[in-house]
Amino acid sequence: METGANVFDYIFNPRAVAIIGASPFDLATQTHMKTKMKEHLYLVNPKYTELLGKKCYPSILDVEAEIDYAIIGVSAAYLPQVMEQCILKGVKVAQIFTAGFSETGLPERIRQEEELKKLAKGKIRLIGPNCFGVYCPRSGLSIVPEAPTEEGHIGVVAQSGSFAESFSYFANTKNLRFSKVISYGNAADLDGADFLEYLADDEDTKLIAFYIEGTKNGSRLKAALTRAAAKKPVIAIKGGMTVQGMRAAASHTAALAGSPDIWRAVFRQSGALQVENFDEMVGALMAFDTSPLPSGRAMALITNSGGFSVIQTDMCLKADIDVPRFSPETVEALRTLVPAAGTNISNPLDAWPIYYNVGPTGNIADIIRIVGADRGIHTLVFQFDQFRYLRRILGQGIDDHMKRLIELMVEGCEQVRQKEHKPVMVTVSLDPYLEDEEDRHYNLLLKKTFTERGFPVYATLDATVKAVANLCRYSERRNRVQRASPIS
Amino acid sequence: METGANVFDYIFNPRAVAIIGASPFDLATQTHMKTKMKEHLYLVNPKYTELLGKKCYPSILDVEAEIDYAIIGVSAAYLPQVMEQCILKGVKVAQIFTAGFSETGLPERIRQEEELKKLAKGKIRLIGPNCFGVYCPRSGLSIVPEAPTEEGHIGVVAQSGSFAESFSYFANTKNLRFSKVISYGNAADLDGADFLEYLADDEDTKLIAFYIEGTKNGSRLKAALTRAAAKKPVIAIKGGMTVQGMRAAASHTAALAGSPDIWRAVFRQSGALQVENFDEMVGALMAFDTSPLPSGRAMALITNSGGFSVIQTDMCLKADIDVPRFSPETVEALRTLVPAAGTNISNPLDAWPIYYNVGPTGNIADIIRIVGADRGIHTLVFQFDQFRYLRRILGQGIDDHMKRLIELMVEGCEQVRQKEHKPVMVTVSLDPYLEDEEDRHYNLLLKKTFTERGFPVYATLDATVKAVANLCRYSERRNRVQRASPIS
Repeated sequence: METGANVFDYIFNPRAVAIIGASPFDLATQTHMKTKMKEHLYLVNPKYTELLGKKCYPSILDVEAEIDYAIIGVSAAYLPQVMEQCILKGVKVAQIFTAGFSETGLPERIRQEEELKKLAKGKIRLIGPNCFGVYCPRSGLSIVPEAPTEEGHIGVVAQSGSFAESFSYFANTKNLRFSKVISYGNAADLDGADFLEYLADDEDTKLIAFYIEGTKNGSRLKAALTRAAAKKPVIAIKGGMTVQGMRAAASHTAALAGSPDIWRAVFRQSGALQVENFDEMVGALMAFDTSPLPSGRAMALITNSGGFSVIQTDMCLKADIDVPRFSPETVEALRTLVPAAGTNISNPLDAWPIYYNVGPTGNIADIIRIVGADRGIHTLVFQFDQFRYLRRILGQGIDDHMKRLIELMVEGCEQVRQKEHKPVMVTVSLDPYLEDEEDRHYNLLLKKTFTERGFPVYATLDATVKAVANLCRYSERRNRVQRASPIS
Repeated sequence: METGANVFDYIFNPRAVAIIGASPFDLATQTHMKTKMKEHLYLVNPKYTELLGKKCYPSILDVEAEIDYAIIGVSAAYLPQVMEQCILKGVKVAQIFTAGFSETGLPERIRQEEELKKLAKGKIRLIGPNCFGVYCPRSGLSIVPEAPTEEGHIGVVAQSGSFAESFSYFANTKNLRFSKVISYGNAADLDGADFLEYLADDEDTKLIAFYIEGTKNGSRLKAALTRAAAKKPVIAIKGGMTVQGMRAAASHTAALAGSPDIWRAVFRQSGALQVENFDEMVGALMAFDTSPLPSGRAMALITNSGGFSVIQTDMCLKADIDVPRFSPETVEALRTLVPAAGTNISNPLDAWPIYYNVGPTGNIADIIRIVGADRGIHTLVFQFDQFRYLRRILGQGIDDHMKRLIELMVEGCEQVRQKEHKPVMVTVSLDPYLEDEEDRHYNLLLKKTFTERGFPVYATLDATVKAVANLCRYSERRNRVQRASPIS
C-alpha cells in the first residue's frame, strides 16, 4: 500500500480503472463508457469476451495495464477471491458496490464484512461496501450516466448512495456542478472523516455537502468537520434524528447512530450548518454557490398576489426572516410607478399591474432596482407567478411580451446584485404536475435565463425562504467566530 | 330586495348575468364566453356595440332580460352610478371586482366603501369589493377560463381572490373538483360567515376550504364555523398569523386581524382543521376528498431508497406520524419476495429489486398487498421514484415494462383500499424543473392513472405525510367529539 497522502490521488485521478463484474446492465459499466474514463477503463467478467464494443477480461490478473482503482460489483460470495486478485494485481483502491453486509443486521453478513476488512488491511484501501462510489468530472469517474461532464465547486461526502446518486442525476435540473461526489456506504475502511479532511484542503472544492448516518469514531469526525468548516461552508444532514430514524439508519449502513442532541452539538460546535433533508440541502447549496452572504435578516419580497403575500409573510416570520416596511423614500419612488388600485406599496410588494408594461420606463426592472436599493433590506426575493394572468389579457401577443419581460426581470435583478452586493434569490413558481405546456414553457425559460446568469432559482417560495434563512444562519455564525478571534 | 333565504339562489343559480365594464381583455368576459352561462349573459359597456360576437349594451338599463347577478369591473369613480342603475334594474346581487377601497388604507377610499354600503343597503346584496366572485360549475359562473366544467364536492370560501383563482386554475393539475368557490374580498356586505352557513347546508358540498384574513363579527363567524364543522370537514387558513402577516392582511382586505392565539382557539373550538398554507390545504383537500379516515397514526411507507428512507422516517416522526416495525407475519411474507442484499425488510420498505419483476407473482402488487394487510398499519403510503433506475437497466424495453408496472402498482393499491379500508396515499416524486421528458412522461402517466382511480397523489413525500397527519388530526378530533356525545 502507498502512504496515506497518496490514496486520494488514486481515487480522484486514477491512471486506469477496472470494473469487476462488468455487464451491459451494470450501472458502472454504462456510466463509464460515456465519460472520458472510457479510454483508461478495463472491463472484467469471465462471462464475456467483449462488452459494448470493448474487450472484456476473465480476471483482473489478465489486464496488462496497472490499475489504480477497481469498482467491484460481484456478488458477496465471490468478493474474497476478487479482492485477493486485486491485491495481487497491485490495485490501490477498491470501491465495493456490493451490498448485503453489516447493514442487513445478520450476524453472518457482519462477519463477512469483518473478514473483508482483515483481508484488505495494509494491502488495499476500501470504499464501501454498499456504496455508489465516486463522481469526479475532472477524471471521468462517475456514478450515473446522466451526470454532467463540467466541473464545479461543490464537494459531497455521503454515507448514502441515493444521496450521491440524486446529486449526480439532478445536477442539471438544479444547476449544481461538483468537484467530487463520494458515496462511502458502510465505511469498512475509508470513512466520512477521511473524505472531509481531503475536501477541506482541496482547492477545487469551495463548499461541502455532508450526509451521515453514524460513525465509529465520533471525535475524529468532529475534528474533521471543524477543520473543514473553518475553511469553507459545510452543509450537513444527520440521517436518523428520531428513534425510528435511527433504527432505519442502523439497517441501512449499520451505523452507530448516537443521540440527536449529541449530533446537534457536534454540528454546532464544529461550525457545520445542519439542515433537515435533501431538498433543503439542495436549496442551501444553490444559495451558497451563487450568493454573497446577507448582512441581516431583512428580506424584501416582490410578488404578484395580495392574498398569498399575507401567508407568505407568515411563512417568512416563522423561518425567522423579517419582512420589514420599506423606507419612506422607497415607498415614494414606488408610488409613482405602481397604480394604487388592487396593489399595495408595502413589503411584500404586490406589483401585478407592472407586468403589463414592457416599455422603457416604469417597468419591472425599475421596481426591482428601487426595492433592492432600500437600505433596510438585506436580501431581495423576486417571485414570478404571473404567466397565466398575462396570457389571458395578451392572447397571441404573449410570446414577444414574455421575452421582453424576462429580459427586464433578469436585468433588474442583475443590477441589484452588482450595485448593492445583496443576495438576490428567485422563485419561479411551477407545479410539477402542471400539464399546461405553454405555461410550463415560459416558466422554464425564465428559470433557465436566471440560472444561466448565476441566480439561485426555486420552484416554491417556501424553498427560497429556507435558503435565505440558511444564508443568514451561516452569516451570523461566521460573524460570531470572527468577533471571537479578531486576529485570524 | 328578496328575503335572505333567496340571495344564494341568485348567486349560485342566476337566471341571467350582466358583466358591467365588459371588454375583450376583461377576465369575467373571457371566462363566461366559454361556459354555459354564455346563453344567459349580457355584456355592458358604452364603448362597444359588440364584443366577441355578442351584443354589448351601453347601460344595464338597456338590457331587456331580468338580471339576477351583475359582475362589476368599472373603475371606482363610476361605481356609484353603475350601482344605482343596477338597483333601478332590479339586480339582486352585485359582485364588485373593482379594487382600491378600504384595503388601500387611504381615508378617502375607506369613505368610498362606506358610501357603497349605504347605497346598497336594503336594495341590493354585494359580494366584494376587491374580489374575484364565484365559480359554480353547475350554473356556469366562473372565475377563470381554465376552470373545469365538471362539478365536484368541495366548497371554497376565500377572502383572497388569489386563493379562489388558484383553486380554479389548478383544479385539473391537482385533480380537485368543486361545488362552489367564493371569493368575497373586503366583505362590505356578504361575509365569510354567510357563505359558510350556506355551504354547511348545501347538499352538493361535502368538504369546505376556508381562507380568512379577518372579520368584523367574530362571534358570528365562530358560530358559522361550528355549524359547518359539525356537518362536514372544514379546512381553514388564517392569513396573518404573525405581526407582519397581520399588517399585510390589513393592507390586503382591510380586515381586523385579531391575535393568532384567538384564531387558533376559534378554529379548535369550532372543530375546523387549521392548516398553514395553500399547498397544505390542497394536499388536505385531496386526502379528505378521496380517503377514509385512518384509525391511528401508524403509517407504512413502501419506497426505493435506503438512504432517503432514513430521513423520510425522521420526517414522519416530526409530523407525529409513527412508522412502526411490521408484524413478524408481514416480515416473513415479504422475506420470501424481497432479496436481502441492498434492501431491508423494515418500515420504510426499500423494495427496489421488485420493480424489475413484472411477472405474475412476487411483484410490486404482492408487496403492496402484504404491507397493506399488516394489522398494525393504519395508512399505506406508496412512493415511486424509480424510473431512471429502470431505464438504465432496461433501455428500449422500458415502455412495455413501465406500462405493466403501472398496472401492478395501481392494482396493489386498489386491493388494499378495497379490502383493508385504510387510506392509501401515493407519492409520485417529480421535480418541477425536470427537463428529462421521458422521465417526466412516465411519472405523469403514473400520476394520472392513480388519480383517475381516485387516489390522492403528491409530488413530494413531505406533502404526503402532511396530508396523512391532517387526516389523523381530524379523525382523532371526531372520535373525541363522538365519545363526548354518544347519542348523536
